[in-house]
Amino acid sequence: MELIREHERVDDLHRNGLLIIQDKKRFCFGIDAVLLSHFANAKTGENVFDIGTGTGIIPILMTARYDAKSYTAIDIQADSVEMARRSVKLNKLEHLISIYECNIKQALNHFKAGSFDVITTNPPYVAKGCGLVNETSSKAIARHEITCNLLDIMSVSAKLLKTNGRFYMIHRPYRITDIITSMKENKIEPKTLRFIHSTIDKEPSLVLVEGIKNANTMIKILHPLIIYNNNGEYTDEVKNIYWE
Amino acid sequence: MELIREHERVDDLHRNGLLIIQDKKRFCFGIDAVLLSHFANAKTGENVFDIGTGTGIIPILMTARYDAKSYTAIDIQADSVEMARRSVKLNKLEHLISIYECNIKQALNHFKAGSFDVITTNPPYVAKGCGLVNETSSKAIARHEITCNLLDIMSVSAKLLKTNGRFYMIHRPYRITDIITSMKENKIEPKTLRFIHSTIDKEPSLVLVEGIKNANTMIKILHPLIIYNNNGEYTDEVKNIYWE
Repeated sequence: MELIREHERVDDLHRNGLLIIQDKKRFCFGIDAVLLSHFANAKTGENVFDIGTGTGIIPILMTARYDAKSYTAIDIQADSVEMARRSVKLNKLEHLISIYECNIKQALNHFKAGSFDVITTNPPYVAKGCGLVNETSSKAIARHEITCNLLDIMSVSAKLLKTNGRFYMIHRPYRITDIITSMKENKIEPKTLRFIHSTIDKEPSLVLVEGIKNANTMIKILHPLIIYNNNGEYTDEVKNIYWE
Repeated sequence: MELIREHERVDDLHRNGLLIIQDKKRFCFGIDAVLLSHFANAKTGENVFDIGTGTGIIPILMTARYDAKSYTAIDIQADSVEMARRSVKLNKLEHLISIYECNIKQALNHFKAGSFDVITTNPPYVAKGCGLVNETSSKAIARHEITCNLLDIMSVSAKLLKTNGRFYMIHRPYRITDIITSMKENKIEPKTLRFIHSTIDKEPSLVLVEGIKNANTMIKILHPLIIYNNNGEYTDEVKNIYWE
């Protein structure tokens, strides 16, 4: 099998020699995925489920950090699934990571309820009806809530997770009201938030969210994660995350 | 009438010559009240309602900043109301500020629904049942949700506010889930959050909240408000708020 196709490139993830295949015409992973894979926490022997995996970046990066038993990842786009599978193969991670073509709304038809310890997701950020979108384009499906929305993600995640299972997501701060109310509605209790600011004097552009299924109501807001220092360079914390 | 009693002290608010009477045995205002009175916004001619006014600090400070038509403030503790009234008199603000002894749950019996443009509140932070509390002490009533909770405040505020009226509160970040869900339940849409950190590397200890009655779902998280710089001094922003 030819692992790399025309229009594709292979990027070095600077971690355990891991590589990733990307296609410039499709959605390429950003700092969001790197920060989420670092924020998410999988313990030895746990089973992890990644929703909307795209290139497969989240489970691939997590293998370098955690000793989980398995990573199951789904994406609705067949081309993404096919490309992510080749990245898994390129990294010889087929024993750990399985990628499936699946809409999150149908996940309960294919995966057993209560069978995952951890869910990760870097979902589409933009609510349906906001902005002009070509709803069939690959990039639009990755960025806009065309095929699933926050409530779909929360309601299926709540079913897939074990009690006390952990839910990790990165999203836009301007959606925090929807995030918190959709988590509460599905009994995934928001437990940790960390806002991410490009610089300390700017509004946050991203937020990391940890929820725990059926936990008590008590949330912790962490100190801000700042991307750039005053010199326009990555802060030490971000450098450590990228090249730990 | 004797304006200052034994056990009381008079503090200079460093703003328009304003003074405040406080009693060391009772709840004294903190940076919370100062930051809230600066964050809250009252326009010319508007009617403002302050819930749980304590010493009367919020409306008294707001008179220095805004040209509102009136400030109506309530507190459940008769002694606080009596002392706050003397502070109003000391500052010759009787034409602007009226203080009433009233439980927020009974406010609709005394004040007209839909008659306020702005609500401010620095409410008790601690949920009922958390911590050992002498439920009759004056300080406990100011700090713990003994006589009212977040849902009481939101449900009455929603009725007192005009459509598009603005709600301003300072609270603890660990209550943000309860804050957002109780606001949503009462159609006071969370519009702005600002987290307050003692230093940039610490979790926030306070959060400023702006809500708008019947507004659309779109929230803005502002950049963090940092209290102390690396030298342990107030940051310029906090200095400006205190001594503007």
